[in-house]
This record gives sequence, structure tokens and C-alpha cells, in this order.
Amino acid sequence: MADFAPDPAFEAGSKAAGELALCHVRLQDDARYPWVILIPRQVGLVELSDLKVADRARLMEEIVAAGDMVRDLAALDGDPVDKLNVGALGNVTTQLHVHVVGRRRGDDAWPGPVWGAGTARAYDPQALALRLSALSARLAPRAA
Amino acid sequence: MADFAPDPAFEAGSKAAGELALCHVRLQDDARYPWVILIPRQVGLVELSDLKVADRARLMEEIVAAGDMVRDLAALDGDPVDKLNVGALGNVTTQLHVHVVGRRRGDDAWPGPVWGAGTARAYDPQALALRLSALSARLAPRAA
Repeated sequence: MADFAPDPAFEAGSKAAGELALCHVRLQDDARYPWVILIPRQVGLVELSDLKVADRARLMEEIVAAGDMVRDLAALDGDPVDKLNVGALGNVTTQLHVHVVGRRRGDDAWPGPVWGAGTARAYDPQALALRLSALSARLAPRAA
Repeated sequence: MADFAPDPAFEAGSKAAGELALCHVRLQDDARYPWVILIPRQVGLVELSDLKVADRARLMEEIVAAGDMVRDLAALDGDPVDKLNVGALGNVTTQLHVHVVGRRRGDDAWPGPVWGAGTARAYDPQALALRLSALSARLAPRAA
């Protein structure tokens, strides 16, 4: 069986941030929203039902942990979030992944969903480095 | 403390279908998509982190069960789904709830998210009754 690797499609819009017990964690490179992506490090997953029950419970806890990461990111923006949005869609990239996105009243897509709405605004290099550094405090180093 | 009740906003677009151990279950009244909504029956929940850990694990399992319900609904349409979409947004109705939606390539919103996309198409009364009956096979009777 091949080793786990994130779908190359994730490289285009997000940066590897580190690892949790179950998931590879990425920062969405979109300064409009504090936004973390979780990808369980197992091969061939598409739906939540493809995970074992214990791993599903772990994923739920990692979703909650990602919410804390999103709040850390929002603090760096100096702009707390009003609501977390959690979504597992996979219509375009089918490898199982979960988005955890911080939303603010009046943000570009409010109150609609962020997926497919408008155009990402990449972080500048310094802001990106600062955010990856903040996330690393809650994560194991990224896998090679 | 007041008893649990679903936010009245859910009445507009969905129908009570029954109960799981944790969640009140509703059928979204939109014939475009087989679509179930889970609402944990506790007062004052907004984010997943407001649930206790054990209830979060239970919610995850009820999300997976809702995926099976969505596939049952799709079978009644004679049109299996290609992907499940799971979302906990709450930007408009903040009471914690989870959408489990069956998606087909080429459906009205494909590959974008369903939330806020286009206009719901209500089931006709017979189709609605048939779907609520199908869901009831997997659910406890709806609470009074």
C-alpha cells in the first residue's frame, strides 16, 4: 500500500503546518479567513464512514483543536471570529479532509459559505511565516 | 433551564423526522438534494466545543448514520449520490446543527456548496410522506 500523501491539489492554496495524532494539518493561504484544513493520514479515504470509529472520534477532537488554532490565527489578525464553520465536502478534491474556518459578520462571504466564494488573497510572506509559527505551537513538526 | 426545542427557523425549510440518541433529526424539504439535519437536543449549544467529548463522539456517529439516511433518500429518488457533504455552519441560525447532504455530479450547485445556492424545491406531499416514512425506519419517533 502506498504511503499517505496529501492530494497535490492542496499545494495550490494551502501550506503544510504540522501534524496531529490523526491528521495532517494545513493553513489555507487566504488572508480573508483564518482557516485550517485537516487531512487524516490514511490512504484511500473519501467519506467519514471510511474511518474506523475510534479514528472518527479522534477526528472530531482534532476538529475542535483546529477551532482553537483558528482562534489563534484570528488573534494574529487582531480580529476575533464570530462563528466557526466546519465542512467536509470533497466535491472537487475527494481525499477526505475537513475545513475549519473562522467567520466574521461582514466578511467577504458572510453569511454564505466560503467555498467557491470570491478569490483567495494570499498572505504576505511575513504574515504567512508568523501564522505557521503560531500553529506549530499546537502541532508536531510536519512530516517529511 | 428551558427544555430543548429546535430554533423556529428550521420550521420554514425542513420537517421533523425523528430522534437519534443525541440529535433531533429533520428532513430538509428540498427535492433537489437528499438532505438531513441533525440538531443535538441540548440547550444553548453553538459550537461543537460546547458539547461534551462523549457527546461529540456520539454526534460523529450520528453524522455517519445520517449519511446512510441520505443514501436511503437517494434510493427513493432512483438516483444514487456521488458524495456526501457535511457542514456545521450556523452563520444564520446559530443553534448547533449539522447538515448531511447527498450530492450528485451535475446537481444544481455542483461542485459548489448547497448552502445559499438557488431556491429550494419543496417535495410534493406524497413524496414528502414517503421520505419521512423511510427515515422513520432508522429513528425513534419524533419528540412531542
